[in-house]
Amino acid sequence: MVQIRPIIMTLGLILCTISATMVLPAIVDLADGHNSWSAFFVSSIITFFVGGLLLLSGYSEEPMQLGIKEGFVLTTITWVCVAAFAAMPFVGMGLPYTDAFFEAMSGLTTTGSTVLVKLDDLPHSVLLWRSLLQGLGGLGIVVTALIMLPFLRVGGMQLFQTESSERSEKVLPRALALITATAAIYSVLMVLCIAAYMAFGMNPFDAVCHALTTVSTAGFSTHDKSFGFFASPTLEWICILFMVLGALPFVIFIQLIRGEPSALWKDTQVRGFTFFLLGMCAVVTFWLMTVQNKSFAEAARLAAFNVTSIITTTGFSSDDYAGWGTFAVGLFFILMFVGGCSGSTSGGIKIYRLQVAKMLSRSHFLHLISPNRIITMTYNGRRLPADVPFSVVAFLAIYMATVGFFTVLLSALGLDLITSLSAAASALGNVGPGLGDTIGPSGNYSNLPFTAKWVLSFAMLLGRLELFTVLVLLRPEFWRN
Amino acid sequence: MVQIRPIIMTLGLILCTISATMVLPAIVDLADGHNSWSAFFVSSIITFFVGGLLLLSGYSEEPMQLGIKEGFVLTTITWVCVAAFAAMPFVGMGLPYTDAFFEAMSGLTTTGSTVLVKLDDLPHSVLLWRSLLQGLGGLGIVVTALIMLPFLRVGGMQLFQTESSERSEKVLPRALALITATAAIYSVLMVLCIAAYMAFGMNPFDAVCHALTTVSTAGFSTHDKSFGFFASPTLEWICILFMVLGALPFVIFIQLIRGEPSALWKDTQVRGFTFFLLGMCAVVTFWLMTVQNKSFAEAARLAAFNVTSIITTTGFSSDDYAGWGTFAVGLFFILMFVGGCSGSTSGGIKIYRLQVAKMLSRSHFLHLISPNRIITMTYNGRRLPADVPFSVVAFLAIYMATVGFFTVLLSALGLDLITSLSAAASALGNVGPGLGDTIGPSGNYSNLPFTAKWVLSFAMLLGRLELFTVLVLLRPEFWRN
Repeated sequence: MVQIRPIIMTLGLILCTISATMVLPAIVDLADGHNSWSAFFVSSIITFFVGGLLLLSGYSEEPMQLGIKEGFVLTTITWVCVAAFAAMPFVGMGLPYTDAFFEAMSGLTTTGSTVLVKLDDLPHSVLLWRSLLQGLGGLGIVVTALIMLPFLRVGGMQLFQTESSERSEKVLPRALALITATAAIYSVLMVLCIAAYMAFGMNPFDAVCHALTTVSTAGFSTHDKSFGFFASPTLEWICILFMVLGALPFVIFIQLIRGEPSALWKDTQVRGFTFFLLGMCAVVTFWLMTVQNKSFAEAARLAAFNVTSIITTTGFSSDDYAGWGTFAVGLFFILMFVGGCSGSTSGGIKIYRLQVAKMLSRSHFLHLISPNRIITMTYNGRRLPADVPFSVVAFLAIYMATVGFFTVLLSALGLDLITSLSAAASALGNVGPGLGDTIGPSGNYSNLPFTAKWVLSFAMLLGRLELFTVLVLLRPEFWRN
Repeated sequence: MVQIRPIIMTLGLILCTISATMVLPAIVDLADGHNSWSAFFVSSIITFFVGGLLLLSGYSEEPMQLGIKEGFVLTTITWVCVAAFAAMPFVGMGLPYTDAFFEAMSGLTTTGSTVLVKLDDLPHSVLLWRSLLQGLGGLGIVVTALIMLPFLRVGGMQLFQTESSERSEKVLPRALALITATAAIYSVLMVLCIAAYMAFGMNPFDAVCHALTTVSTAGFSTHDKSFGFFASPTLEWICILFMVLGALPFVIFIQLIRGEPSALWKDTQVRGFTFFLLGMCAVVTFWLMTVQNKSFAEAARLAAFNVTSIITTTGFSSDDYAGWGTFAVGLFFILMFVGGCSGSTSGGIKIYRLQVAKMLSRSHFLHLISPNRIITMTYNGRRLPADVPFSVVAFLAIYMATVGFFTVLLSALGLDLITSLSAAASALGNVGPGLGDTIGPSGNYSNLPFTAKWVLSFAMLLGRLELFTVLVLLRPEFWRN
């Protein structure tokens, strides 16, 4: 049986936090003299009421114990409930609940697909709320990936179980301390990003909003033209830097602070990510210089910004790459699947899984050539735990099958193939923009049918929680004793 | 070290067979009074000369022994060399060698993508040669899948190793006998198909050509409008029947003849294939009736023909399904990946791999829920061999990665995303037509750039030989001792 009490209490606690956060946009609106503050105020009250009720009814003197089943239920239910309540202020400003839920889920999962148009004309409160959701969602997923997913052994995340638990034994004794450290590092990155954006020309409001959505590799902007609005190469390079930082494993930062700078370049995943990112930037730069006749400086910046934005699954755009020719579109479509490092704010398949898969594929070929050879596989200097290879490859296969499933579903709802396929890949990878005229980098999700928005909201949740966490709940065996 | 002698001898033998087959189109041309017979005659002489030379130089009194490495080299090199020689008659009729090789590879791999236009105006010899290539290729792949692939343990084909070798011990003592039996069954199916086509209105030439490309689930037609040319519901239903027969495991037919009719419906793969095919036909029929307002009879026929054509990876079209709305396009794109049964003439991922993957995914979920549970997996009433799960899932992951790789490559050659993606999926699955304006069901591969044709020829080879057989040769470890 699934224990309800700890789930209810934790959920209550998180809803109270969300309720407190809703006060911030209300204050901004009051300061601006906008009357839309009431939407945030009412939403905050309702959320606090429900959250408090859950907290009280779930409270117990006994120390809280979470089993595996509770872990799966809690993780999934939290993300769904937070999105459901976070959507309320959007309803208050006049959006249908479908659109409001889509926007909230897109925010929390740090996807960055939007159904809002004319962003530049929206009240500051709404823009801030979208950015806050992404900031909170980014922190939420790092904590989930550090604490819950390795415990639940989802998609090979047990690879980081021993590692992070060993590290936490050495570095920080308990999970709470790990959460605090992560939150502190996240806040420091945020402050540095705000300062850098302001130093190079953004107004304070834009700087705060964009920092919240850059470090969380999420991608909401306060302008319809996204990052292209600022037309500032320096700001773009700053953005590139912080997108990369947001896509690195946060455990690395803890090690850096503890005086182990070598952790950064000794980590297999960080190295793989860096080489892959630089390689792709070089290829696209070369393409832009030779085929599109751009100067080196412009080509390098355009390539770095848009490639980093896709690989880190941020989804900012500085230019409509649909105009860069067929190669860019084909490559960027495939890059939507890659993602950043595990334990970061980025989505997608993630670098370590691709590295493990590459290693497995090599060993499989060796095994085909000499069936009796025994091959030991190590990752990051440790021997690969026995159940990781299959977990990782199963994740890859189910990831692709899920993209296929959503593609057919969206096609049945009337979306053309490019839109269906790229929307499915983008939502599952928590990237943001898709491809094609409707949802491409210069497009928007507002014109999609209502059902498609629910389907995509579900896809974003699935992708964010690494598929298995949610899918396991759909199995009848889960609910049997 | 790889032993050269048995490879050379077997290759020589196969080239001599191809040379003999080339005489048939030459005879047809002579009978028609066409002067294009000389192209086939000259090609036949050259092929016979080279084949004979190889046969003589590789001949040895000692019994031939093939190791694993020799198996990989022989399988790959045979398909490449046969395509290289089979392309010669197309050069003789004026095609550039790139186009000729593409057409020959597309024929032999039973893909069915064509670069030839105005098929209706071509000499009978050329049309017959295209069909003969597919007929030979279909038999070739069944034999390869029965004898070589399980031996090489490619992509989980070892699942059929014990099975087919045990069966062959019981049913037919040696590999040669198995080949003979397969060829006999294949010929009987061919003759039945020709008879049925002729009985319901095809002229003898069309009947022979289409039977050769139906039973081999290959898809070349003698008309630009493909099967739509005949505009005959009865012929379409006959075609559906023989496409399905071609996509069943040929071992089943041997068992049927041996008086085990239950083999057909007891086989897990045959059942899975049948249910999946019927399910998809039902869905598309329902869609055509409700959304496209077709009558049941027409909807059922259109659905059955086009769904069967894609799932069996034949590639005949009776109608341009691009006009059926977004759902059909999305679904048919995904269906390109599925494929028929192992040990059949069809391509794609294949039903047994999807069944094994589904079983593994279920067991993985159970394992996530209760980590200590021990789950035994059986397939077709037998316990799954230890290395099959990983082989199958690795195949799926590498299949998808390969589609991604070819998509980017074709994009870089200037093809739009839909064309690149569907061409990659179609070539790798040996389906035939792609999607979009260029290579869609009413399109043609002739306008693609030269490089793209070579890339796709390679993709067809990869797909036909179940990826690993070819990819393993690209690994440096293969060539080390």
